[in-house]
Amino acid sequence: VLGIGDDAALLRGGSQQLVWSIDVCLEGVHFRRGWLSLKDLGWRATQAALSDLAAMGARPLGALCSLVLPAKTTRAMLREIGSGQADAARSSGCPIIGGNISRGRELSLTTAVLGETASAAERSGAQPGHELWLVGDVGLAAAGLRILRARTPGDRVGSLSSAEQTCIAAWRRPRALLRQGEALASCASALIDLSDGLAGDSVRIAEASQTRLVLEEEPLRRVLRPELGQLSGQFGCDPLDLALYGGEDYALLATGPSSQRPQLARPIGHVTEGSGAWLQPPPPARSVRLRDGFDHLQRRAGPSR
Amino acid sequence: VLGIGDDAALLRGGSQQLVWSIDVCLEGVHFRRGWLSLKDLGWRATQAALSDLAAMGARPLGALCSLVLPAKTTRAMLREIGSGQADAARSSGCPIIGGNISRGRELSLTTAVLGETASAAERSGAQPGHELWLVGDVGLAAAGLRILRARTPGDRVGSLSSAEQTCIAAWRRPRALLRQGEALASCASALIDLSDGLAGDSVRIAEASQTRLVLEEEPLRRVLRPELGQLSGQFGCDPLDLALYGGEDYALLATGPSSQRPQLARPIGHVTEGSGAWLQPPPPARSVRLRDGFDHLQRRAGPSR
Repeated sequence: VLGIGDDAALLRGGSQQLVWSIDVCLEGVHFRRGWLSLKDLGWRATQAALSDLAAMGARPLGALCSLVLPAKTTRAMLREIGSGQADAARSSGCPIIGGNISRGRELSLTTAVLGETASAAERSGAQPGHELWLVGDVGLAAAGLRILRARTPGDRVGSLSSAEQTCIAAWRRPRALLRQGEALASCASALIDLSDGLAGDSVRIAEASQTRLVLEEEPLRRVLRPELGQLSGQFGCDPLDLALYGGEDYALLATGPSSQRPQLARPIGHVTEGSGAWLQPPPPARSVRLRDGFDHLQRRAGPSR
Repeated sequence: VLGIGDDAALLRGGSQQLVWSIDVCLEGVHFRRGWLSLKDLGWRATQAALSDLAAMGARPLGALCSLVLPAKTTRAMLREIGSGQADAARSSGCPIIGGNISRGRELSLTTAVLGETASAAERSGAQPGHELWLVGDVGLAAAGLRILRARTPGDRVGSLSSAEQTCIAAWRRPRALLRQGEALASCASALIDLSDGLAGDSVRIAEASQTRLVLEEEPLRRVLRPELGQLSGQFGCDPLDLALYGGEDYALLATGPSSQRPQLARPIGHVTEGSGAWLQPPPPARSVRLRDGFDHLQRRAGPSR
């Protein structure tokens, strides 16, 4: 009804439930300037915020962005950020209808997103007997970030392998799985987006639902992208660690009865009585409990095993 | 419907228009730690954000807060901030239903507020012939900030005069005029909150409405609080300058036909054909054009005359 320029934005009300979330993308914490272009930054901050709507199965209505800009920010730089935000807004059908702007020492984008849904998918509905479903790829963004952290400034992109380029793009240009979230909302018993990693977000569903989530190692390994296998050798780690403890892919993790499993969902485990998230290797090895490898205040992901 | 703990907050939809805004309160830009307690900070950030709902005549539905906390922040400090936010939420009937938390070098609170209204009061409806109305006090917060900036750390509050204490409290503990905003929405042709100062925000109504706002010096001086007169002597400035160029009181400025003026509104001028905001001194002096003394990127207010 009313966009940028007044004291607030106006939207038409509706009979559906409103879904509302806020997310920050802060220089020195969530990104460094050398890791991505300002256009990528605008895209990434917007998609990351939108992923919370996907995780509730909501259709986006609009976004507000509060920008903090260091004194050295030029108009051209601001246009770059805005251009990435506009691309993300267009591609997800979520107009940016207002915001705020302020000086500050560190560049940051705080994005609030509002959506609507007839029936929101919460984290708390997982039930024993349900399957565990994965939608989207996991571990690629974590691998991409690892490459970016290790790169010397000035390295040419040409020197990167195809697998490296894929993973860097996964980190720089994530995409909120909004359509998939809406589809899952009608059949899933619990839904979350993997912003913090498969291990930590599985723990979160288990806690909210007061059940145990069992990730089965074999089907999980089968859904991992081949790039993870290629790069894990280079990193000297197991590709599974990238999937379990690497966040920011914004894939979706859901639970639901097998009879309701939609085609886009890949089964990677099941729900039982109990608590916590567990990784079940092929027999005769015993299951191991997964810890939430992510602390929002430390901003550090790591393996628990 | 659903508060803190899931991917997003859920609210019941309704038939009214939604009013949505976001605001940031950032260390080193909007405040320094020595100027207010963490409890005051939580209160102030929440009220400042809510003031945008008052400026649209909206009733608050809820707030989200994205917190950025430096590494040295303790749990006790976080509780202090939260306690100020909770006080502000209670006193304004606006529950805080979600948010986000992140590490960062500088403390900041970014607050998004959502409200609803049957008919929002925009900035763009001022018409020639309408009166200009002030609701609430102006200049006190600017005077308070000036005192805080000049104080040596460790100065005891006991050494402050009553006028100084009033002004410091006006800056530390502003109150969004939500009830007054709702009352004005039904009779005002334009409405704005004075976050940036009477001069700048008058220019904003004039621009949005394509009219001229004339602030009459005599009635304006009459509504100024006596504390401004007492302190302006001390500062060596005109009390009018504090009112015109000092923001953050979160008073409301409105226009409307005199027949509709509510009792809480004090007339301080009128709307004519033309453009810009002008100060009209008593005759025979000529009117002077007021400039927007506030630049969000410079974060600096100053006189234009």
